[in-house]
Amino acid sequence: MQLRRADTSLVDDATSAYIAYHDKYVVVYDFAKIHAKVAIAELTTLLNDLESTGLHTEVRAGYDETLLVFVQAPRELLGNSVYHARVKDWLYGIAKQHPGGTANTIVKGAYEAEDLLSLYHLVVWSKALGGAGITPQFGKWERVTSVFPLHHPRANRELLVHLSKRLFLSSNDLDQIRDLWGTGVAFYFAFIQAYFLSLAFPCAGGVLAWLFLPKYSLVFALIIGIWCTVFLEYWKIREVDLSIRWQVRGVSKLKHNRPQFQYEKEVIDAAGRVRHYFPRWKRIVRQLAVVPFLLASTLLLVLFIGAVFALETFIGEGYDGAYDNLLEYVPTVVLAILLPFINNYLEDVAGSLTEYENHRTQDYYEMSRTQKIFVLQSITNYLPILLTAFVYVPYGKTIIPFLRNIILSAFGVKQDPNFTFRIDPDRLRNEVIALTVTGQVSSAIEELALPYFKTGVKEWWRTYRTSHTFTGGATGRMRKGDDPVEARFLRRVRKQAALPSYDVHEDISEMVLQFGYLALFSPVWPLIPIGFFINNWFELRADIIKICIEHQRPDPVRSDGIGPWVASLEALTWLGSLTSAAIVHLFGTSDVWGIGKWWGLPITVFASEHIFLGLRAVVRWALQTIGSKHIRKERAERYAERKKYLDELEKSAARKGHLDIVERERRKSVRMTAADVFWTRQVEEGASRAAGVGLIRALKGPECDGDVKASKVD
Amino acid sequence: MQLRRADTSLVDDATSAYIAYHDKYVVVYDFAKIHAKVAIAELTTLLNDLESTGLHTEVRAGYDETLLVFVQAPRELLGNSVYHARVKDWLYGIAKQHPGGTANTIVKGAYEAEDLLSLYHLVVWSKALGGAGITPQFGKWERVTSVFPLHHPRANRELLVHLSKRLFLSSNDLDQIRDLWGTGVAFYFAFIQAYFLSLAFPCAGGVLAWLFLPKYSLVFALIIGIWCTVFLEYWKIREVDLSIRWQVRGVSKLKHNRPQFQYEKEVIDAAGRVRHYFPRWKRIVRQLAVVPFLLASTLLLVLFIGAVFALETFIGEGYDGAYDNLLEYVPTVVLAILLPFINNYLEDVAGSLTEYENHRTQDYYEMSRTQKIFVLQSITNYLPILLTAFVYVPYGKTIIPFLRNIILSAFGVKQDPNFTFRIDPDRLRNEVIALTVTGQVSSAIEELALPYFKTGVKEWWRTYRTSHTFTGGATGRMRKGDDPVEARFLRRVRKQAALPSYDVHEDISEMVLQFGYLALFSPVWPLIPIGFFINNWFELRADIIKICIEHQRPDPVRSDGIGPWVASLEALTWLGSLTSAAIVHLFGTSDVWGIGKWWGLPITVFASEHIFLGLRAVVRWALQTIGSKHIRKERAERYAERKKYLDELEKSAARKGHLDIVERERRKSVRMTAADVFWTRQVEEGASRAAGVGLIRALKGPECDGDVKASKVD
Repeated sequence: MQLRRADTSLVDDATSAYIAYHDKYVVVYDFAKIHAKVAIAELTTLLNDLESTGLHTEVRAGYDETLLVFVQAPRELLGNSVYHARVKDWLYGIAKQHPGGTANTIVKGAYEAEDLLSLYHLVVWSKALGGAGITPQFGKWERVTSVFPLHHPRANRELLVHLSKRLFLSSNDLDQIRDLWGTGVAFYFAFIQAYFLSLAFPCAGGVLAWLFLPKYSLVFALIIGIWCTVFLEYWKIREVDLSIRWQVRGVSKLKHNRPQFQYEKEVIDAAGRVRHYFPRWKRIVRQLAVVPFLLASTLLLVLFIGAVFALETFIGEGYDGAYDNLLEYVPTVVLAILLPFINNYLEDVAGSLTEYENHRTQDYYEMSRTQKIFVLQSITNYLPILLTAFVYVPYGKTIIPFLRNIILSAFGVKQDPNFTFRIDPDRLRNEVIALTVTGQVSSAIEELALPYFKTGVKEWWRTYRTSHTFTGGATGRMRKGDDPVEARFLRRVRKQAALPSYDVHEDISEMVLQFGYLALFSPVWPLIPIGFFINNWFELRADIIKICIEHQRPDPVRSDGIGPWVASLEALTWLGSLTSAAIVHLFGTSDVWGIGKWWGLPITVFASEHIFLGLRAVVRWALQTIGSKHIRKERAERYAERKKYLDELEKSAARKGHLDIVERERRKSVRMTAADVFWTRQVEEGASRAAGVGLIRALKGPECDGDVKASKVD
Repeated sequence: MQLRRADTSLVDDATSAYIAYHDKYVVVYDFAKIHAKVAIAELTTLLNDLESTGLHTEVRAGYDETLLVFVQAPRELLGNSVYHARVKDWLYGIAKQHPGGTANTIVKGAYEAEDLLSLYHLVVWSKALGGAGITPQFGKWERVTSVFPLHHPRANRELLVHLSKRLFLSSNDLDQIRDLWGTGVAFYFAFIQAYFLSLAFPCAGGVLAWLFLPKYSLVFALIIGIWCTVFLEYWKIREVDLSIRWQVRGVSKLKHNRPQFQYEKEVIDAAGRVRHYFPRWKRIVRQLAVVPFLLASTLLLVLFIGAVFALETFIGEGYDGAYDNLLEYVPTVVLAILLPFINNYLEDVAGSLTEYENHRTQDYYEMSRTQKIFVLQSITNYLPILLTAFVYVPYGKTIIPFLRNIILSAFGVKQDPNFTFRIDPDRLRNEVIALTVTGQVSSAIEELALPYFKTGVKEWWRTYRTSHTFTGGATGRMRKGDDPVEARFLRRVRKQAALPSYDVHEDISEMVLQFGYLALFSPVWPLIPIGFFINNWFELRADIIKICIEHQRPDPVRSDGIGPWVASLEALTWLGSLTSAAIVHLFGTSDVWGIGKWWGLPITVFASEHIFLGLRAVVRWALQTIGSKHIRKERAERYAERKKYLDELEKSAARKGHLDIVERERRKSVRMTAADVFWTRQVEEGASRAAGVGLIRALKGPECDGDVKASKVD
């Protein structure tokens, strides 16, 4: 099965060896749940829409009751679309120079993703924008399950081989990812690479802290705080650098309305463009609805996780009745079963809220949605640790026996008078280690192994169930009716059609969560960064494999960074300055302020936060002063571009010298006002000097007589 | 004397009625302390440098041993310089469009300040940049005391008359200020206008709070916090709007090296320009020296003011020995005498530090210096209130008797056993009122009355001392040797030459300090904003008069906002969220947390700060989402400018339709690879549809036979 699965996007076959991948898209049409008549009508419309855009189509059978509509753009159409896209970039100030050429110019994309992006736009953009308007799973295209570009097996393989030889990814390596999958995905890899490399510093710090510093060390917390800050400010500059390198700076301005966007009216802007207008203040008001939602969700999650946590602690440490060993796992199991449901429900609500916010572009929509989900994820991830640190350890002695009494008396169980409760002092550390390690492992399973397995099973089931439509053995299976020449190619495409699409935000979110553990809880266990360091080296490579094998090829959409995730990272760093300080204060050995642990806590947290803020201001100021070399380069280029005008200007540099005679005479001869007379008194060459010398001599006396000539020149 | 003084810049005379003010500058050369030989040599160089730039000069006698070198640019030179400046703006991306014309084009400035700026550059820019390189009070021009443009009496008067009729300044009014004095000054007036107007809100709030809210009201503190935040975010947008309106956005990029700037080497940048390079990291390191300086200064000021404060309190309230009444004023007098010295000394150090930082442009230099001075000023201004609020009132009961004992026993004075110390509960309020009111009054005196008086006395002294060189009475006085026709004009210029130059940062700093009182101490006395509101209405007008009468006309340098003052305002607002909360907490009636005033303080401050930060994030996000209409307009314009290209592109919109027959045949006829075959199967029109329909029917069964034709079109 290994080979059969892997070849989906990595192994060429006879057909695909010669195929070009820069101009092909596949539209998957599912007619399982509708009447054939409707299906035929819809298919007809679909094909008409595609063909009237100038695209060429080929229809083949997919899995089950689906059709694969292969879309190819003729060379002229695609080349012209790419050219138009470049002109548009220039029109919106993203590219600095007009690409040259005229309306009918045909160009080849500089890299595969550029061509593909134009093709993607031809398929999905509205007809008004010159596309076919195929919007999968929306409106009249509800039964178009997906629209995706074909994986390029050779390029995928080459990328993997190339990267496997490299320890670190350079900008050139990132360029290759951009060439294949577009800037949106490339920025994720740029981020994980930068993050991975910078982790070396907390790793070294962690080892030293582990060897030489006390537990819950303030120094180590500071080191991590500084690192977080410096890394973030560095990344902001790196992001700008890359966005200039990839010519996508400010690309979000250019994005088009998502089909779900509902506008109130059309307005014509100053440049004569028709704009779909939805008042900004209305969106702002709608977005404010997120505040009660997040508050309610937080409360719900806190209550639920808190209850499970309390029950677990009670059973594990405070309960010694019947079935002790068995019962201990019940709360965790309940949590494990129920939490996904709760999360799913909340994520659905978050999705609806985001839909209600009525974002104009897909970008903003996705960002807004992902941010909400991220907050929910953060709560589920960090809350158990926070509860352990700030409730269980300090208050456990009071709460657990209290809980025990309540629960035991509720069940009428006789209480053991000899019971004494002991807090597990290492529980915080163990919790952090468990959550981070299991987090990494489980995410690896979730991302790689599970989908692999799931897809395998699905495929087997599909093959088994529809075996009447397939012939041939395991390696040569083909659908009845397939042309044998195309069989392998079609099999690959069918597999890809069944894969989920790739959401880069999910991967970024995982990294941000990881960063959060570091920022929030680093003093608990200084060796955490080492685990992350190792994990991320693999993560980067695994994610590339994941995109190649587990997902449809991503639409090569453009973005100019990782967007709002930078804000999330900043928020986590900030929050970290609070939690780290609180942990060091509560768990560290010394009572700094000499007024008791709890009285001193607000002061510690306050001090730590302001040290962090001061530090951040300095780092930000320093790094922004040094600035982005790409920005400077860009400015210099724009300047050079305009330089040719300057050349002409410089020819006139020889315009110096005193007023020429004509002008001098003119000024003397014209009819003058009182004011003009003033300016004509010393018109003659040397007259000003003579007047000045006269005045000086008048005041200084005759002492300088005779020296005047000698001192004429300084 | 009134009229005689006022006419300096407001009253025309026979000469100046017809004079043009857009092309004149005056260089003041002082040869009092040098030998005539040197003076003549220097004057010769000065005149040569000016004349070799193409400027015309007239020399007249100034006050004392000074010469007034009148500089006028010939129409051709000035017009061409203005044109070059516009081209340069375009070269550096400040203007969006090339102004048209060629190297020798001559244009008239759109307003007076534009011409004047070019003339200013002709006088002060280095020879390499085409100027005469006259840098007053620096290097070989140490004895050039000032270089200034002549006040335009009629324009000044018209501006004053115009503004006196207007209650509020509109953007058009600000345009007039810009026309006369350049954007640097105009931005100050834009700021004070915006600030003044927005004060209406805290005024109304203050009255309501005074009527209906308890003393030290939390609600009022919140209102002021919100107002500060909203005003600041609004101003940022307004700043951008104005900088676009005045075409100065990003103008700081274009600034030239100040002569004091020392570079390490010359480098050629990507655009082929010679750049004077001084490593940024070195400047950063040098700037870090400000940290110990500010810490030390703060300590010094805290100690000094604290000591005086303690002494004053002790004598006023804790001391009842001999000379009580007299002694009470001693500390204040000592403070009043010594503080200016200390401040001057610290400001000198700040100046040297800034010099050491080696800023490339005058802008950065001034900003850096002004910021340092601002911090020092803030300490002297706010510290007494802070001491009263957080030391005197809470700890006075302990400290004052303690101090009393120490001091009395040091002097061996017998102690009165019946002495009891009572804290003055209204002292905080009185202190705030006194400081703000006297601050406004004393600044008005310092700015208007004092210079008026000083200049008057100076002038009288000068006239008296040099009476042998002057003839005529009070109204018609003229220097001996003056042409009677020019006498009045020269008298005006001599007066202007003796005036100080105008530093806009000082005026902004005053407003920022005022804003600080509001942000930091508003809950103490809710009626403060009303005083400020009234004051600022006059302040705005008084400042215009001040520039007209008390100062040389400002060099019309450009800037794109009030620069780093925005950061100062932000810092004060932030700080205010701490101090206001602390004041409300300590002086308010309720003990919110029920754990004692002092234990609860960190919690209150912490909570307040984070409420403020959250609020600021929301306000910032909302206002930036709504955004600047000028930015949108600018973008639209840039788009429109590029639109003509689009028009051509749109002609090709008719490139739709299926592949034409030729292409279709070509594709069928060329030698094909296996992959190509795939894409030729359904080339014929309708073939894709037929194939799809076939597949649907095969799966759905024959149920749909007969419907196919009917459903051809959706």
